Amino acid sequence: MTEATETLEDRLSRIHLALESERLDHVDGVIADLEPAEIALLLESLPPAARLRLWERVPGEIDGEVLLHVRDEVRSTLIEDMDHAEIVAAATGLDTTDLAELFEDLPQQVAEDMLRSMDEQQRTRLQEALAFEADSAGRLMRTDAIAVRADVSLEAVRRFLRLKEEVPDNTHALMVVDRDGLFVGTLPLARVVSHDPEVAVAELMATDVDSIPVTMSARDMATLFQTHDLVSAPVIDEAGRLLGRVVIDDIVDVIREDSEQALMNMAGLDEEEDLFAPVLPSAKRRAVWLGINLATAFLAAWVIGRFEDALDKIVALAVLMPIVASMGGIAGSQTLTLAIRGLALGQISRINSAWLLRKEVGIAALNGLLWALVVAVLAVLWFGSLGIGVIIAAALVINMLAAGVAGIVIPLLLKRSGIDPALSGSVILTTVTDVVGFMSFLGLATVFLL
Amino acid sequence: MTEATETLEDRLSRIHLALESERLDHVDGVIADLEPAEIALLLESLPPAARLRLWERVPGEIDGEVLLHVRDEVRSTLIEDMDHAEIVAAATGLDTTDLAELFEDLPQQVAEDMLRSMDEQQRTRLQEALAFEADSAGRLMRTDAIAVRADVSLEAVRRFLRLKEEVPDNTHALMVVDRDGLFVGTLPLARVVSHDPEVAVAELMATDVDSIPVTMSARDMATLFQTHDLVSAPVIDEAGRLLGRVVIDDIVDVIREDSEQALMNMAGLDEEEDLFAPVLPSAKRRAVWLGINLATAFLAAWVIGRFEDALDKIVALAVLMPIVASMGGIAGSQTLTLAIRGLALGQISRINSAWLLRKEVGIAALNGLLWALVVAVLAVLWFGSLGIGVIIAAALVINMLAAGVAGIVIPLLLKRSGIDPALSGSVILTTVTDVVGFMSFLGLATVFLL
Repeated sequence: MTEATETLEDRLSRIHLALESERLDHVDGVIADLEPAEIALLLESLPPAARLRLWERVPGEIDGEVLLHVRDEVRSTLIEDMDHAEIVAAATGLDTTDLAELFEDLPQQVAEDMLRSMDEQQRTRLQEALAFEADSAGRLMRTDAIAVRADVSLEAVRRFLRLKEEVPDNTHALMVVDRDGLFVGTLPLARVVSHDPEVAVAELMATDVDSIPVTMSARDMATLFQTHDLVSAPVIDEAGRLLGRVVIDDIVDVIREDSEQALMNMAGLDEEEDLFAPVLPSAKRRAVWLGINLATAFLAAWVIGRFEDALDKIVALAVLMPIVASMGGIAGSQTLTLAIRGLALGQISRINSAWLLRKEVGIAALNGLLWALVVAVLAVLWFGSLGIGVIIAAALVINMLAAGVAGIVIPLLLKRSGIDPALSGSVILTTVTDVVGFMSFLGLATVFLL
Repeated sequence: MTEATETLEDRLSRIHLALESERLDHVDGVIADLEPAEIALLLESLPPAARLRLWERVPGEIDGEVLLHVRDEVRSTLIEDMDHAEIVAAATGLDTTDLAELFEDLPQQVAEDMLRSMDEQQRTRLQEALAFEADSAGRLMRTDAIAVRADVSLEAVRRFLRLKEEVPDNTHALMVVDRDGLFVGTLPLARVVSHDPEVAVAELMATDVDSIPVTMSARDMATLFQTHDLVSAPVIDEAGRLLGRVVIDDIVDVIREDSEQALMNMAGLDEEEDLFAPVLPSAKRRAVWLGINLATAFLAAWVIGRFEDALDKIVALAVLMPIVASMGGIAGSQTLTLAIRGLALGQISRINSAWLLRKEVGIAALNGLLWALVVAVLAVLWFGSLGIGVIIAAALVINMLAAGVAGIVIPLLLKRSGIDPALSGSVILTTVTDVVGFMSFLGLATVFLL
């Protein structure tokens, strides 16, 4: 019985101290108590040199499991550090589903050798798994489902299970199939143990079960598991034949990655990004994002440049113009974030987007008026010019309304074009609020104050 | 056997059409096929009026379940629409854990009446559940765990289970306790069905099981379930007595809410925010965030104001200054997002933060130099002044370095002060990059160009 109360941070300190002081027995001691997923978190938390020293201490028999749990980018750094034989050894312990996940990250030579070293059945299974699209049910399913026939008794089922070498601990239901292998229902073990042995499977099985088409996407499966409170579900082919089962622990990983993705994409980052990636490749990847933003910043600068005359004459305009742009950006990003979450959950469609737009514009109008008043008073007090106060108030209201509209319209348009709204939404939004902000403020000033 | 292929969007269209055309039988038809969690998603996706019309069609016997699945804010709008008797009816169908979750959202009068109408045992159970801190294991645990003694045989266990009226389908392991009710291990049903009846529980049970202290936080449980691939876990009190079990579907909700929170908080929103919240209260809540940002925008404006002289003489400075601030903001938010994710996963601590800082500063330096060069060339071409090119390049490098440092230091300081870095990190960061950006660019210009 273990009580898991030590935090990752505590472990990190212990491992770090042990590595620093070369007390490798201590390192081994910490590792011995941990699950592969926990070792994966520890490896991700260490800078490259320490990471590789820890990796060398991870016992070979769990190398494969650990590799499955680290982010893609970290995985390649670990694989680079292994020799051919180590990689083969790590991979051979895995079941087909896990091996398929790892397979495409392996060096080509290793992958080829591994295929050659497999027996016919293993190779066929792996190739079948690889034939399914990444992130589909076919890739994620486990093939360890135990199937029984509907016309047998519970007694026969129990005899069958006793004859099997092992029933996985995480089996909570048996799959029921007909004589052609077509899926007909599930038989929760809770029912097997709580009913008389002479009852037939057909009488007890659950038939209103959610079965998953083999082509279903990971994201759709995640929604299904969440809304139906599933722990496992059968995977079937087009004909309805049972192919395997998807279990909740693999779905939990999908849910976590999916939600991390939105957060990271909004900053132009990849969710597979290694916290301790080397400087040069990281800088390269981020440079793209910065370049795109630079282009939009120059666009905003060009807009400002159109009003050099006004800026030259009234220096207060230069001082105040970032306020108009910034408030629009903040208001817009609130609307955008709400829309991105709604789109990710499938809660926004043509049906309700008009209503949502009206609501967000309403909020923008109220907050625009409120803060326009505040800004106007402060501007008048600061620069002693009523004109500037009126103009910044008008510009602020215009920009916040534009932000409200853009915060809904941009992600909807991106989604319709098949582009991830979380990734490009904020760049485009900021461009809109900068351009509208500078243009309305400086434009109004040019018309009314010069 | 049902294949869940209809998307939420399809359902939304169908429900919307049916509500518009007053075809209430169609509405009922759609609802009848759905799980409470799916109805909850649909309700959240409808504007207030349509939402309430749909809510009236939801059968009373699943009202409670649906209320559990909607966001807090939506929940209160639905409860407001129910009369006293409906609320009581909805709540009575729920088990203690679910009722405790709902209880604090009920109108006080309803809550009091409900307590009075309960029998002694129900009331005690509910009060016990409510005594645990929100989001602790005590609140999340179910009390339907089935406990057996270690010294009995499997045969005795089966007899016991057959005598029970019902074993919940989602039971996948029995809890094993000693004569004092102390938890000693679990017995997966997979083992019960695959072993001979005369074997004793003690021989088969798993003892290296993660047990959860009743005070453990939801977040820590989520980490434990994810890293240990758990489906359920026993909850014990300080003495080691078995109190209940936590099951994966409740943990999946925690994981989803937790990750949504980071996304929403970064925009100053609450993850419980209703997509279709009424305009006035929404505007009020967002106003706070906008006000904070306005204060920082004025700070930036004040900095610009210190350099009126330079702006007055060289108008190009006003045109180009937003570029310096914007590039710093973007670079900083990349670093900040990476740090926020790392902190949320517990992967950043004092041990590795120095290394991380060095890495991010390295990236900032490389990208700073690269984009400084590009910006300098463009600025020289635009304004024909070598001085402006050199100065904007220098300011850009300074600001991007500051952004790299701030992107790591700010979230670490916030975390240490017990403030959520996702919530306030980006405001503070933008303040730093705006102030440093304007100050370095305009300051250098004042010193070298005037």
